Amino acid sequence: MAKKLTSRTEDYSKWYNDLVVMADLAENSGVRGCMVIKPYGYAIWEKIQAELDKKFKETGHVNAYFPLLIPKSYFSKEASHVDGFAKECAVVTHYRLKNDTDGKGIIVDEGAKLEEELIVRPTSETIIWDTYRKWIQSYRDLPLLVNQWANVMRWEMRTRLFLRTSEFLWQEGHTAHATEQEALKEAKLMCNVYADFVENFMAIPVIKGVKSESERFAGAIETYCIEALMQDGKALQAGTSHFLGQNFAKAFDVKFQSKEGKLDYVWATSWGVSTRLMGALVMTHSDDYGLVLPPNLAPWQVVIVPIHKTDEQLDQISEKAQVIMKALRSQGISVKFDNRTSHKPGWKFNEYELKGVPLRIAIGPKDLEKGTVELARRDTLEKQFMAIDEVGNAVPQLLKQIQDDLYNKALSFRESHITEVNDFDTFKELLDTKTGFLSCHWDGTTETEDKIKNLTKATIRCIPLNAVEEDGKCILTGAPSKKRVLFAKAY
Amino acid sequence: MAKKLTSRTEDYSKWYNDLVVMADLAENSGVRGCMVIKPYGYAIWEKIQAELDKKFKETGHVNAYFPLLIPKSYFSKEASHVDGFAKECAVVTHYRLKNDTDGKGIIVDEGAKLEEELIVRPTSETIIWDTYRKWIQSYRDLPLLVNQWANVMRWEMRTRLFLRTSEFLWQEGHTAHATEQEALKEAKLMCNVYADFVENFMAIPVIKGVKSESERFAGAIETYCIEALMQDGKALQAGTSHFLGQNFAKAFDVKFQSKEGKLDYVWATSWGVSTRLMGALVMTHSDDYGLVLPPNLAPWQVVIVPIHKTDEQLDQISEKAQVIMKALRSQGISVKFDNRTSHKPGWKFNEYELKGVPLRIAIGPKDLEKGTVELARRDTLEKQFMAIDEVGNAVPQLLKQIQDDLYNKALSFRESHITEVNDFDTFKELLDTKTGFLSCHWDGTTETEDKIKNLTKATIRCIPLNAVEEDGKCILTGAPSKKRVLFAKAY
Repeated sequence: MAKKLTSRTEDYSKWYNDLVVMADLAENSGVRGCMVIKPYGYAIWEKIQAELDKKFKETGHVNAYFPLLIPKSYFSKEASHVDGFAKECAVVTHYRLKNDTDGKGIIVDEGAKLEEELIVRPTSETIIWDTYRKWIQSYRDLPLLVNQWANVMRWEMRTRLFLRTSEFLWQEGHTAHATEQEALKEAKLMCNVYADFVENFMAIPVIKGVKSESERFAGAIETYCIEALMQDGKALQAGTSHFLGQNFAKAFDVKFQSKEGKLDYVWATSWGVSTRLMGALVMTHSDDYGLVLPPNLAPWQVVIVPIHKTDEQLDQISEKAQVIMKALRSQGISVKFDNRTSHKPGWKFNEYELKGVPLRIAIGPKDLEKGTVELARRDTLEKQFMAIDEVGNAVPQLLKQIQDDLYNKALSFRESHITEVNDFDTFKELLDTKTGFLSCHWDGTTETEDKIKNLTKATIRCIPLNAVEEDGKCILTGAPSKKRVLFAKAY
Repeated sequence: MAKKLTSRTEDYSKWYNDLVVMADLAENSGVRGCMVIKPYGYAIWEKIQAELDKKFKETGHVNAYFPLLIPKSYFSKEASHVDGFAKECAVVTHYRLKNDTDGKGIIVDEGAKLEEELIVRPTSETIIWDTYRKWIQSYRDLPLLVNQWANVMRWEMRTRLFLRTSEFLWQEGHTAHATEQEALKEAKLMCNVYADFVENFMAIPVIKGVKSESERFAGAIETYCIEALMQDGKALQAGTSHFLGQNFAKAFDVKFQSKEGKLDYVWATSWGVSTRLMGALVMTHSDDYGLVLPPNLAPWQVVIVPIHKTDEQLDQISEKAQVIMKALRSQGISVKFDNRTSHKPGWKFNEYELKGVPLRIAIGPKDLEKGTVELARRDTLEKQFMAIDEVGNAVPQLLKQIQDDLYNKALSFRESHITEVNDFDTFKELLDTKTGFLSCHWDGTTETEDKIKNLTKATIRCIPLNAVEEDGKCILTGAPSKKRVLFAKAY
């Protein structure tokens, strides 16, 4: 008997960890804080990548690749960047190993010490802007719209699969523009591209907003973000897009000659999403039976499980399965026919439930007699019988329905977990009971933000872009405020 | 006026370096030995990746991702692996930086020293087989057919863009099998997949063979390889596929229970190609005018350049260009219409010649009158006039022709540069004059191989799989030999 998944109410955190491992998404490696992304998890990440990459290219971006290692001194060049980053990093100090004289192993060759230490990139602004200096001379070289798919490292003390790992995979866009306005437009555009992708492809509703000063990216003038809400009422930052002003251009001396012949510093943005999205995916849709995947991201959208006693029955079922597969594949739907005789149907049902395959089709001897199949939705666990001839038409519609239903279910959960709060006692109480986003007035100071964080662990997730102007009083200090911000405990 | 490309006869090595930079493929970075792959170069690499990835999936492989950093001790576990590898590596010793007390920069925090150093992967056999121990228990878990797209580092002393860089991008396949026979079959299969791809997609002819013992991968029982010949007569190893026996399974204790209930070590292969293929691509086809790209790999297969004096002419030409673009794009051909008025036609001609766009279509006022275009092939530099209406039909055929011609041209160069040699004086002389592959008898000893290498710098590139059995005498020692091997100077 397979190990049973911990339920969400029992221990949400354990449910998440168990599920990620049991559904074959990822596991911890022998290297502290670094995960192995297993084939099933990686297949989902490939779908995320492919769709995002398409969207980036449609909006005029091209891919490139910059070095993994960055000289230590680069990080000191942008003052606020070095404060926020570059501390908890993997540092390369030597470039050679040698055999130990005891003959039993290898040791670091102290004679091969680097003159300047190299840092495994935690993010690439510094090395990219050092490169852009060579690429940009004139307004004709702008805008420069470059993206990179890469691995990055931040030495995290407490790690969790996908959500916070020392190494993770991501994309980082780094663009250069001739005007402030154009760079701002780009930063907002990419925030919208992310929101569109996460909502319509991953079925995860998000709130678009800007970060408060203390949550802003190190070196940014403004950080746009998309914030999602997980089933335990904690928020998860799903993507950020930064307007960097001329900070990096000044730090790395990147100037361009304008149409009018004037020399000026270049305006910049950067933006990224990471394998963290995999964590958001798991925690938004899944249940106590396992993973629930939106059809857009499912490596197999449909699985067909034969139920048979004799080889003859299996042959007959296989024939029907072939017809169904052909009909579905011709419509671009991915189908797996699990005809292994080494595993029983019950085992397979559990397996595909755990792995979140959106639709399961079971065909047994009675179905052969009646010309039917049993169709089961993973998200609602509803089953229905259907004539085999109808499957080809019904499945595409059903998959679309599941995709929409998952989004709407997550949206209504999110909507029912945004609470307007006007006093600090209710604020504290709700954080312990209902949780979710708390929509409150705040006096706009980092001091107040820090105090609230220390008292409650809640942080400002964002100042929503669609926040309504209204007069109010800060929930902690009572000082005047013009709009509400969203607080939450966060991943 | 743009910088002129060094010619091949003038200085082949400089021609290569200049071309890679001038054609916007890659450039050196501020980090010793690490390159920046520029958008145009990366677009070609993406096409290489996409096609290989498709081939890997068609042959049953799935992708996954393993950690960048590997504990030092892992490398000591497989004895021959540690001898051949893991010496010239980037070593991570610390995990934190801190502000320098002088307030001017950051320094390594000596309090954050790792207990065990971590190595930036030079290849991933060790960490993957450490993981496979958890994934493999029974014959039901086999075969395990996993590939990884990743960056790797080998601390090279003398680096050259694409050909030998400290960091490079590659894919590494790591498979596990129940039987020796199956693993051997896999290693050969992947060698064939590589050969098929490099020949039919990159238009580079290769010789399939096995490596001699001294050129074998550290830890392999047999290394299959594909060897290409560059225009300067030097060989380039374009891909390798290793049969690893049970070496890594034994080192990492990976056992499985067979169908018969017997416990045995798992059989392994690994195989990889890298961004080195980009170097092979440049050096096989390009000429003194710049890059020559096979249509399968060209980011733009066709470029349309308008030649006009007035805006009205440009409008008329644009109309025609739109018709051509529509006709070509509907057939899956990528077309760029360069209608920039900031650059003159002559500049554009040079630019696309340098960038190796396979076909250039020029449309001028006279063409408008006559209903023609001027079509120029990048590979042969031949030009022809053609009725506009014919372009939609002619271009796909021409692109196919170019793809075939490039392969055949490279093949006849290669064939004319394989010379049977039977005495060491001729051997030495040919290495300095005609170069290319020298097909010779060799007594099969590493000692002789080393002597020849020391005397001539030539190495055994491979023992061809199709080598004919014949009696002969070793070119150096005169000892008996049963078949010829291929010597060459190599990249």
